[in-house]
Amino acid sequence: MLRALGPDRAFGWNRSTAGAGAASAAGFDVSTDLAHTLRRAGRTDALVVVGVPLPALGAVLDAVADHAPTVALTDVVSVKGPVLAAVRERGLGARFVGGHPMAGTAHSGWDATDPDLFRGATWLVAADDDADPDTWSRVARTALDCGARIISSTSADHDAAVARISHLGHVLAEALALAGGRGGDLALALAAGSFRDGTRVAGSAPDLVRAICEPNRDALLAVLDECLGDLGAAREALAERGTLGPLIDEGHRARGAYEAVQAGRADAVVTVTPGAPGWLEALRRAGADGTEVRPAG
Amino acid sequence: MLRALGPDRAFGWNRSTAGAGAASAAGFDVSTDLAHTLRRAGRTDALVVVGVPLPALGAVLDAVADHAPTVALTDVVSVKGPVLAAVRERGLGARFVGGHPMAGTAHSGWDATDPDLFRGATWLVAADDDADPDTWSRVARTALDCGARIISSTSADHDAAVARISHLGHVLAEALALAGGRGGDLALALAAGSFRDGTRVAGSAPDLVRAICEPNRDALLAVLDECLGDLGAAREALAERGTLGPLIDEGHRARGAYEAVQAGRADAVVTVTPGAPGWLEALRRAGADGTEVRPAG
Repeated sequence: MLRALGPDRAFGWNRSTAGAGAASAAGFDVSTDLAHTLRRAGRTDALVVVGVPLPALGAVLDAVADHAPTVALTDVVSVKGPVLAAVRERGLGARFVGGHPMAGTAHSGWDATDPDLFRGATWLVAADDDADPDTWSRVARTALDCGARIISSTSADHDAAVARISHLGHVLAEALALAGGRGGDLALALAAGSFRDGTRVAGSAPDLVRAICEPNRDALLAVLDECLGDLGAAREALAERGTLGPLIDEGHRARGAYEAVQAGRADAVVTVTPGAPGWLEALRRAGADGTEVRPAG
Repeated sequence: MLRALGPDRAFGWNRSTAGAGAASAAGFDVSTDLAHTLRRAGRTDALVVVGVPLPALGAVLDAVADHAPTVALTDVVSVKGPVLAAVRERGLGARFVGGHPMAGTAHSGWDATDPDLFRGATWLVAADDDADPDTWSRVARTALDCGARIISSTSADHDAAVARISHLGHVLAEALALAGGRGGDLALALAAGSFRDGTRVAGSAPDLVRAICEPNRDALLAVLDECLGDLGAAREALAERGTLGPLIDEGHRARGAYEAVQAGRADAVVTVTPGAPGWLEALRRAGADGTEVRPAG
């Protein structure tokens, strides 16, 4: 995040001395003193972007409540409902708008940062009830500054969606990797592009995968049950009739729908004036259609 | 296949007038007359490479039995056991050695051919009982001419392995695509690299996916049951304890094992003299270790 914004636009905190040192060596203004960094953010009316895994979020929000309780606040944590709840619990909701840039790699740490990671990526900016229009605009501008395009929805709709297009994919990638590994060296030597791509995210650190998926428990359980039903039906059809049944055609159609949505990304942009009557509903309507939004002005 | 070998090394048959026309226009020696092409192969002692989906295999093998019953024969059909059975049923087993280049794209037809598709790919050359050493060598040379590396195993071991590293991946990719599609345009707009990669093979033509996976019914059922068990256990753990359980660590370890096998590809090559005592066992031993083999000389 720091690197995407550049050293002239951002200052930051890193809990790791090594990480902060590497960032400082690269010319960035980074401290390992959280309280100091937050007080500075409060003084300068900075937008605080919280980028820690969910298990570390509570401690960081506690510090925000202590040292910068009125600061404008967003996050880049995967799941949005639990973050919103944690923010509201600490009385920090008035100037909070959640975010989620839909981009990442299987690698972690400062050395894995890529200033172009967010270029062309989709950045979810939340449109929850009572969202502060000024904070929404600042989060949106940050996403645009990083080269991303904005999709907006409620935190709950986001969480249901990412259970489908991210968290389920993590679980299936792990299961596919495990099945391949059980085949031993012959199977792993025969593995080609489909196995490489289908298991790519199983290369992510297990703690990170758990921190991304497990907090979205309810939505992930719902889609896991749906998926187990689909796979079980295909299994039965194969056992009884020698065919995988409708799954292959339905999956192919869905992949086509995905390609069409992605190919049509540039076709429409809805401009919304944060704070104008009905602005949150306009954001959510565009999001339901998969349409990019931009703040007016 | 023709294109990978080049116009001076190959002649061929294509059942489609359009496909044969496009290949001819590109300078290749291609006919739509199967009987004529097979008689020519028999006369010139060519190696016949059968590259049709399994449902079309019987008719092509019938023609081989009619017009070139003693020709050297291989195939590039995904599943090997059913091909071997169909070949033996027609009395064509004496000069047959099955093959499977582990490379492909989601696209079909002459325009989708890529002369470099097999470069660096793994090509399974079967080491079944009573394999003809001369045919084995010719199939191996063809794979090497296409730039591939050779792994050898029995047809049955190959089929069990590809159920794990290819066919299960097809089924999971379709299920993931379907789950994403059910999330509508919001989910499909939020989908990023992990969804793109995890559903890539769902872009393949459904008839081709079925033709690849369904003939491997028994091996695929076994690994589907194993996978449903893994996913069910993760689902129960998430519901009861809020964690996905051991799946994430086990999948990550398996992905690491895959990366290690692929990274170590160049480290060892076993040279085998086809027809020498114990040559089939030597091929299978190397295959079980995921080690490349080459014919001596």
